[in-house]
Amino acid sequence: MLENHAVAVADNRIAAILPLEEARETFQPSVLVERPGHVLVPGLINAHVHAAMTLFRGLADDLPLDAWLREGVWPVERRFASAELVRDGTELAIAEMLAAGITCFCDQYFFPEIVAETAVDLHMRAMIGTPVVDVPTAWAEDAADYLSKGSDLVHDRYADHPLISTCFAPHGTRALSDASFTELRVLADQLDVPVHIHLHESKSEVVASMEATGMRPIERLDNLGLLNSSLLAVHAVHVTPPEIARLASAGAGVAHCPTSNLKLACGIAPVRAFLDAGVTVGIGSDGAASNNMLDVLAEIRMAALLANVAADDGGAIAAEQALRMATLDAAKTLRRDHEIGSIEPGKLADLTCIDLMRYNSQPVYDPVSQLVYATRAEQVSDAWVGGRHLLDQGELTTINRESIFRRSGEWRQRITDFRNQRQ
Amino acid sequence: MLENHAVAVADNRIAAILPLEEARETFQPSVLVERPGHVLVPGLINAHVHAAMTLFRGLADDLPLDAWLREGVWPVERRFASAELVRDGTELAIAEMLAAGITCFCDQYFFPEIVAETAVDLHMRAMIGTPVVDVPTAWAEDAADYLSKGSDLVHDRYADHPLISTCFAPHGTRALSDASFTELRVLADQLDVPVHIHLHESKSEVVASMEATGMRPIERLDNLGLLNSSLLAVHAVHVTPPEIARLASAGAGVAHCPTSNLKLACGIAPVRAFLDAGVTVGIGSDGAASNNMLDVLAEIRMAALLANVAADDGGAIAAEQALRMATLDAAKTLRRDHEIGSIEPGKLADLTCIDLMRYNSQPVYDPVSQLVYATRAEQVSDAWVGGRHLLDQGELTTINRESIFRRSGEWRQRITDFRNQRQ
Repeated sequence: MLENHAVAVADNRIAAILPLEEARETFQPSVLVERPGHVLVPGLINAHVHAAMTLFRGLADDLPLDAWLREGVWPVERRFASAELVRDGTELAIAEMLAAGITCFCDQYFFPEIVAETAVDLHMRAMIGTPVVDVPTAWAEDAADYLSKGSDLVHDRYADHPLISTCFAPHGTRALSDASFTELRVLADQLDVPVHIHLHESKSEVVASMEATGMRPIERLDNLGLLNSSLLAVHAVHVTPPEIARLASAGAGVAHCPTSNLKLACGIAPVRAFLDAGVTVGIGSDGAASNNMLDVLAEIRMAALLANVAADDGGAIAAEQALRMATLDAAKTLRRDHEIGSIEPGKLADLTCIDLMRYNSQPVYDPVSQLVYATRAEQVSDAWVGGRHLLDQGELTTINRESIFRRSGEWRQRITDFRNQRQ
Repeated sequence: MLENHAVAVADNRIAAILPLEEARETFQPSVLVERPGHVLVPGLINAHVHAAMTLFRGLADDLPLDAWLREGVWPVERRFASAELVRDGTELAIAEMLAAGITCFCDQYFFPEIVAETAVDLHMRAMIGTPVVDVPTAWAEDAADYLSKGSDLVHDRYADHPLISTCFAPHGTRALSDASFTELRVLADQLDVPVHIHLHESKSEVVASMEATGMRPIERLDNLGLLNSSLLAVHAVHVTPPEIARLASAGAGVAHCPTSNLKLACGIAPVRAFLDAGVTVGIGSDGAASNNMLDVLAEIRMAALLANVAADDGGAIAAEQALRMATLDAAKTLRRDHEIGSIEPGKLADLTCIDLMRYNSQPVYDPVSQLVYATRAEQVSDAWVGGRHLLDQGELTTINRESIFRRSGEWRQRITDFRNQRQ
C-alpha cells in the first residue's frame, strides 16, 4: 500500500509508479488526473459472467437453480436469443461493469462474436467464451458447429487483439457427450485457449452425472483429459477434499460466484480449502439473472464474509486475499496475469480508482479492509482500460446512457408480453 | 405496488396516497417533489446498531467474535468511550444511515442520552437503548446506576418526544446477574418499554451460559420473566426448534443481523424457521465495527440470499418478505408499527426514495425484486423523517460533511496512536 504515489501511463501500459513529488518533477504528462482521498487498485476482473443476461435481470427471482432455468430463463432465451439481444444486453453489462470498476470480464454466452464486437466498440477488455452444447440453438447446430464457429468467428478473428482473448465455454458436463468433449479438448489444445465450464455447481448436477455416466463431473473431465491448467472451474461448490486436491494438482483455477450460489440455493463453495490446497480462486458475478448485479466489489465482500461461516473462522479470508481474488488471482485464472491484475510497470494500464471520502468508508484505519468491507460500487470514480479513460468521475465516456435505457426498456416490454401470452 | 402515484404530507404525517393526476387536481402543495423513475418506500428501519462504533470501523477486521471484542474493541472502548466520542460517532452513523435511506434506528451504546440528543439535533428518528451491564464503565457504575440513568436521562427526558422512543438494552445474558435482570424487568414493565438484548449470537455464549447457570440464555430469560412481547432478541443464530417456538409463543421479536453474523463467524440465523413459527423478524446492520456498513438495503439482500442456503430453497424468503423486514416488520419489533413502517394515511411521514434509472437496476420487471436484489444504497436519492426532507437528491440537509470528516479523522489519529503505543 503506497501513499501519495502516482502512476505514469504511456500508450496503453504502466510506465512507472513513483512518489507524487518525484512524479511532478519527472513527467510533463499530456493528461494529469488527480484524485486525493481515493485509492487506485488494479482494474477489477470479473472471472465469470453471462453479460447479455442483464436483459433478464429479475425476470424469475426466488426460484432454485433447476426451476429458474426451466421456468424462467430457457423459454425466454429460446424465443429471444439473437445477435440484437446479445449486443444490447452486453452493452448494458459493460456499462454496469465499468461503472463498478470492472475493466475485464470473462463471458460465456451465445453469439460470442457479437460480445467481442461490442467489447471492442466500447474499448472494454474481455475473454470471450464460445459456448458449446450438443443441442441446437439460434447460434449453432451441434457441438462441431459451435466449435468451428468459435474458432472462426471469435478465436481467429481476434487473434492478437489488444483487448480480446478467447476460451471455449462448454455449458456443463450434462450438456456434452464424451465425443464432443474430446473434440473440444483437441481444438482447445491446438489453439492453446482455456476451457471455462460450470462445474459441481449444484448437488443435482453431480447426481445427474453419476446416474448418466457413473462418474462425478470432475472425474469424467479428468478421464477425458480436460482436468489441467487450462481448466477454469466455475462455481465448484459441491467438491470433496480429494476433488479439491485433484483440481490443485492439475493446476486448474476456480471462478467463485458466491452470490449466485446463494441465490440459486446451491450452497457455499469451500474457498478456504481451495486456497489451502493451492488452487487459484478468481471472483465472478455470474449473470445478472442469478445475482442480480455485476458487482465485483460486492462479490469479494460476500466471499470474505461467507468464508468465515464456511470455515468457522472469523479470519478465514483476510481482506487482502479477497481483493486479490478480484485482481491478480482472477487474472491468473484467465491466464492473463502477465498482462493484467496488478499495478506494475510494463503491464497494461487497467486501473480503477475508488473514493473513500464517503460516510460509509470513514474513518480509514486500513484501506484494504475498507475496500473489501465498507465500500460500494458507486464509490468507483474512474476506470481505465489499456490507458483509456472509460469512466471519468462517474461518467462513462464511450457509452450513451439514454440509448441503453431506451433499448433495455424495449426488450423488457417484448419479453414481458411474451411471458404474459404464455401464461 | 402503485404506479404513477403521489403521497401528500401535512405537518409530519402522511395525509393521502392518490394517483398523480388526481393529486395535481386536489392539492396545491407548498413544496412539490417529483421523482420519475424512482420508487418510494417506507423509510428503512435499522433494528439493531451501535451507532457510535462507526469510529471503530475496520479497526480490527478478520477476527472471530471473542477475539474481536477482547483484542480489538474493548481496549479502545475502555480508553475512549466518552460523550464526545459518542456524539461524533453517532453523527457519522446518522449521516451514513440517512444517505442509505434509513430513517429510524434502534441503538445500544454507552451515553445513550448523547445518542438521543444527537438524533434530535439532526431530526433523526431513533429508539434509544440504555445499555445495562454489571461492570463499571465510563458511563455508569453498576446495573442499578445504568438503570437509573437510563430512566432519568433518557426515558423521562424524551417521554412523548416526536422523534425518540426508548428501551433497555442489557448487553447479553453473560453481562448481568439474576438480580440485575430482575431489577431491569421491574423497571421495564413499569415504564412499558422494550428490552433489546444480544441473544444466542454465538455458540460460546450458549456454552458459557450453560456452564455458569445450567441454562441456555433463552431458558434463563424465560425463568426471569423476560421472555415476552417486550423482548427484542438480537441475532438469535444458535436457537433450537423448541426455542424458536418459545420465542413465538412469547410474542418476542428478532433483530436479524446477517452480515455481522458472517463477519464474526457466528453462523446463519434460521430466518425461514422464525417466519414459519410466526416470529416477527426485523433487519439490523449491527455496529460498523462488525459489518462494516450501516446499510439496510445490503442487509435485506444478504438476508434473502442467505436464507436460501440455510433452508436449501431458492425461494426461502421472497423479495417482498425481505423488504418487509426493513420496514413494517422492523417497526413491529420496535413496537412502533402504529406510527411507522408503511406508507399509510395517518402514519408519520418517514419516506425513502430510490432511483432505479441505473445500469445495475435496469430493466425493471419487478420493482420489489429490483430493490432487494439489484439496488445499492447510493441509489437512495431522498429521505424524509416526519415530513422533513433530510436527504435531498443525495445531499444531507442537516449535516455538515466536512465537519464530520474532520472529526472522524481526528478520532482515527488518536485511536491509532493509542493502539501503536500498546503494541
